Amino acid sequence: MGVTLGELAARFDCETRGDAATPIDGVGTLRNAGPGQIAFLANPRYRRYLESTRAAAVILAPEHVDACPVPALIAADPYLTYARVAGVVCPVPAHEGGVHPAAVVASDVELADDAWIGPCAVVEAGARIGAGAFVGPGCSIGRGAVVGEGARLVARVSLCDGVRVGARCILHPGVVIGADGFGVARDGQAWVKVPQLGAVVLGDDVEIGANTTIDRGAIDDTIIGNGVKLDNQIQVGHNVVIGEHTVVAGCTGISGSSVIGRRCMIAGQVGIAGHLEIADDVVVMGQTLVAASVREPGVYSSALTMDEARRWRRNAARFRQLDDMAKRLKRLEKQAAADTGEKGDG
Amino acid sequence: MGVTLGELAARFDCETRGDAATPIDGVGTLRNAGPGQIAFLANPRYRRYLESTRAAAVILAPEHVDACPVPALIAADPYLTYARVAGVVCPVPAHEGGVHPAAVVASDVELADDAWIGPCAVVEAGARIGAGAFVGPGCSIGRGAVVGEGARLVARVSLCDGVRVGARCILHPGVVIGADGFGVARDGQAWVKVPQLGAVVLGDDVEIGANTTIDRGAIDDTIIGNGVKLDNQIQVGHNVVIGEHTVVAGCTGISGSSVIGRRCMIAGQVGIAGHLEIADDVVVMGQTLVAASVREPGVYSSALTMDEARRWRRNAARFRQLDDMAKRLKRLEKQAAADTGEKGDG
Amino acid sequence: MGVTLGELAARFDCETRGDAATPIDGVGTLRNAGPGQIAFLANPRYRRYLESTRAAAVILAPEHVDACPVPALIAADPYLTYARVAGVVCPVPAHEGGVHPAAVVASDVELADDAWIGPCAVVEAGARIGAGAFVGPGCSIGRGAVVGEGARLVARVSLCDGVRVGARCILHPGVVIGADGFGVARDGQAWVKVPQLGAVVLGDDVEIGANTTIDRGAIDDTIIGNGVKLDNQIQVGHNVVIGEHTVVAGCTGISGSSVIGRRCMIAGQVGIAGHLEIADDVVVMGQTLVAASVREPGVYSSALTMDEARRWRRNAARFRQLDDMAKRLKRLEKQAAADTGEKGDG
Repeated sequence: MGVTLGELAARFDCETRGDAATPIDGVGTLRNAGPGQIAFLANPRYRRYLESTRAAAVILAPEHVDACPVPALIAADPYLTYARVAGVVCPVPAHEGGVHPAAVVASDVELADDAWIGPCAVVEAGARIGAGAFVGPGCSIGRGAVVGEGARLVARVSLCDGVRVGARCILHPGVVIGADGFGVARDGQAWVKVPQLGAVVLGDDVEIGANTTIDRGAIDDTIIGNGVKLDNQIQVGHNVVIGEHTVVAGCTGISGSSVIGRRCMIAGQVGIAGHLEIADDVVVMGQTLVAASVREPGVYSSALTMDEARRWRRNAARFRQLDDMAKRLKRLEKQAAADTGEKGDG
Repeated sequence: MGVTLGELAARFDCETRGDAATPIDGVGTLRNAGPGQIAFLANPRYRRYLESTRAAAVILAPEHVDACPVPALIAADPYLTYARVAGVVCPVPAHEGGVHPAAVVASDVELADDAWIGPCAVVEAGARIGAGAFVGPGCSIGRGAVVGEGARLVARVSLCDGVRVGARCILHPGVVIGADGFGVARDGQAWVKVPQLGAVVLGDDVEIGANTTIDRGAIDDTIIGNGVKLDNQIQVGHNVVIGEHTVVAGCTGISGSSVIGRRCMIAGQVGIAGHLEIADDVVVMGQTLVAASVREPGVYSSALTMDEARRWRRNAARFRQLDDMAKRLKRLEKQAAADTGEKGDG
Repeated sequence: MGVTLGELAARFDCETRGDAATPIDGVGTLRNAGPGQIAFLANPRYRRYLESTRAAAVILAPEHVDACPVPALIAADPYLTYARVAGVVCPVPAHEGGVHPAAVVASDVELADDAWIGPCAVVEAGARIGAGAFVGPGCSIGRGAVVGEGARLVARVSLCDGVRVGARCILHPGVVIGADGFGVARDGQAWVKVPQLGAVVLGDDVEIGANTTIDRGAIDDTIIGNGVKLDNQIQVGHNVVIGEHTVVAGCTGISGSSVIGRRCMIAGQVGIAGHLEIADDVVVMGQTLVAASVREPGVYSSALTMDEARRWRRNAARFRQLDDMAKRLKRLEKQAAADTGEKGDG
């Protein structure tokens, strides 16, 4: 969509430097942008590409304006402004309403006029599809499931029976919402399945990455708050509650019945044990194991970072002697204290 | 389904306290259950909700009966009894038999009369679908694959060619059984694919969580024993063997050709290297790396638990000095021993 | 497909021992192979099965020929030769060309005559499907996506809009290529989605395991080099670049904008942080966290291996005292040095 730099500035309340009539019809990186494309500078590691950029314009912070060889859109938070500009310049294509002839929709489904059900999608009895929603090819929507207004199920998404998806949610291909949680009760040497009878409720403006899975509650529901953003291949167990505006990176697993606060930032490959409570505004670093509740906001970690393997193995072997080393250290301290006639601090 | 407390007691050989005629037509949690709903008390952390519960009845151990304000079903193992009660009160809905008009079933498929093939499911040549089986929307069943009696493929499950699924198995959406294992042979700088020619055999009563993948064997088959329960997003490599009644939690990866014993309990995000043997009755804690065979039953772990990040980093930095520290400690011990005229124990 | 041992030897430039007319029509393991099946010996742990094998013939290295009780195909690299032999003896079945009546293909799709579009596959406007390509049941191919010559999308694969898949690629069920990357910009307490406008480009001869996901670039493309092999359930973030012939094992996560070199071998459950560079020929061991760029080829690790849990916990508890221990050790060394009239080395 073609706009001018000045129109973007007016829309997002920014100042410009250079020709406000510069036409913008695409986006690009500082390094690769060409005619008509607007770029941005947010991460300092890309500063070195500014002087030589051939972008039509650059979104940047005031301190970089003088170094910018092309027109600029000056923003306090260039990344946030870029996000908004890109949404205007490259909008999600509108979709038509209706049901593709190769879709299968039960007769009693409540379907808004301008919602779209794509080819080979299956919508079962009692489901409700809200205004402007998009159900892409190959999706399966279970009995009584609800898709909110303007929600977008890109392709091959499964909503199991009774799942409720809020307004403007985006679910990427392969997402599964509402499969049975992992509930088994031991019966001697074997296991009996515990029926999983709750649902999943997604708030509004939730985005869920490809192949992420969120299990239905065992009895009560699993709940994902408004504005939560989940990356790809995350596993969310039954009866988890995730607070509003929390973001979680890929491959993280959250075990059943844990309650995550609001505005948390959970990195990738984190493991969160079951039945825990995590406060608001907690940040967890990548690959961390969260095995106990977190009562205070802060930054938490448990991952070691790698080393050359031979050196690593030497240190790792010592890890198994650590308790022994600690005791020997204390013994030496006592002996040293005795030698000097002082009392040891051990 | 409506039953009375007394009928449940008779069926599961329990005693009741209070009115055995209490009608039960649903389940609920101690905290949230209302009229007609039966709750249970198993995990002591929920004991505090007992006194104020408004459930119609509660399944609990004898020691909690006196504190229960409503009728009770007294069970030695309340969680197991709950699992069975819930299966009676909230049964899986029966399904009809037949083939949906939007399903695609090859002409020579052997299909039991009361099996169901859902819309947009594809069943290829030579497959066999057992009595009462349910093949949900969007499933793909490869050539010669077998779905056992009463098995349930919820939706969008893929069975590749020749895969065999036992009786009463439950496969949740996104499950892939029998994709090619990861077999490549180095050829100079590149790799040659090693054809994956075995199959996968699932025993009876296996349950497999959403988006879990089990690769076909390279030559012989990958084998999952009776009663195995796998959570979501687990990866099982080619030629793995999992013994009967073993349970595995989400996001765990099991590398090729490893043999896991019976009744093991493997937690989430565990990594099991290839070509290992793990004994029966082994328990592995979350995020553990299993890099060697485990010969004895027991509980095993390798995961560190998190700390505040700044403190964590100080300790983690020392980890790289651990071997050096161990040597210095030994040196000090020797010196101390020499000083006191004793021989060091190092 | 039936061949003789001698024909295989001629084709792959190997020598034989024993009857070159031995007919081969299948493969088997040393332990389980029967009449007509050729086995191989590569991993020394299976050497013990050689003497008693009932295979029709065995592919092995020269040093094992004398111990082989059946005809042999002598190869410098038996595993590589096996891979090729198996490809001849058990070829991928040829497929016909055409569009299944239950597929949905947009009118302007460019479709090679001998390509196959399976039942319930959906191919959207502007896509191009190359000669001999196979698009299996339930796949979704987005607008303008390209499937290269001879590529095989086994079943239920999603290519999002504009994704390009090279020649002879193999994509297993559940693969998602080109879903939106995880891009959000903070806006006060909430997050704004950053439109993901790049594509994904897969080179030739790439193989991608079941339920692996590769996100589209934010602005520029995500790029997977020729001959890359990815196992199951791998997550590749936006704008990642993976060099030619690199192999990655299951459950690994690669964060956005990281650049992986050529011929790397990344094991399972590895986590690679964002914006890193990894040199060519780097080997990373299982469950390692790669939190910094790797400039030199070599073998790297960060994972601890498990121990019996009680012993493990004792050592893990000491980990939190490690920095303190290091300081106390240094203090003792100083004191010891002072005692002996020397200067400490601390």
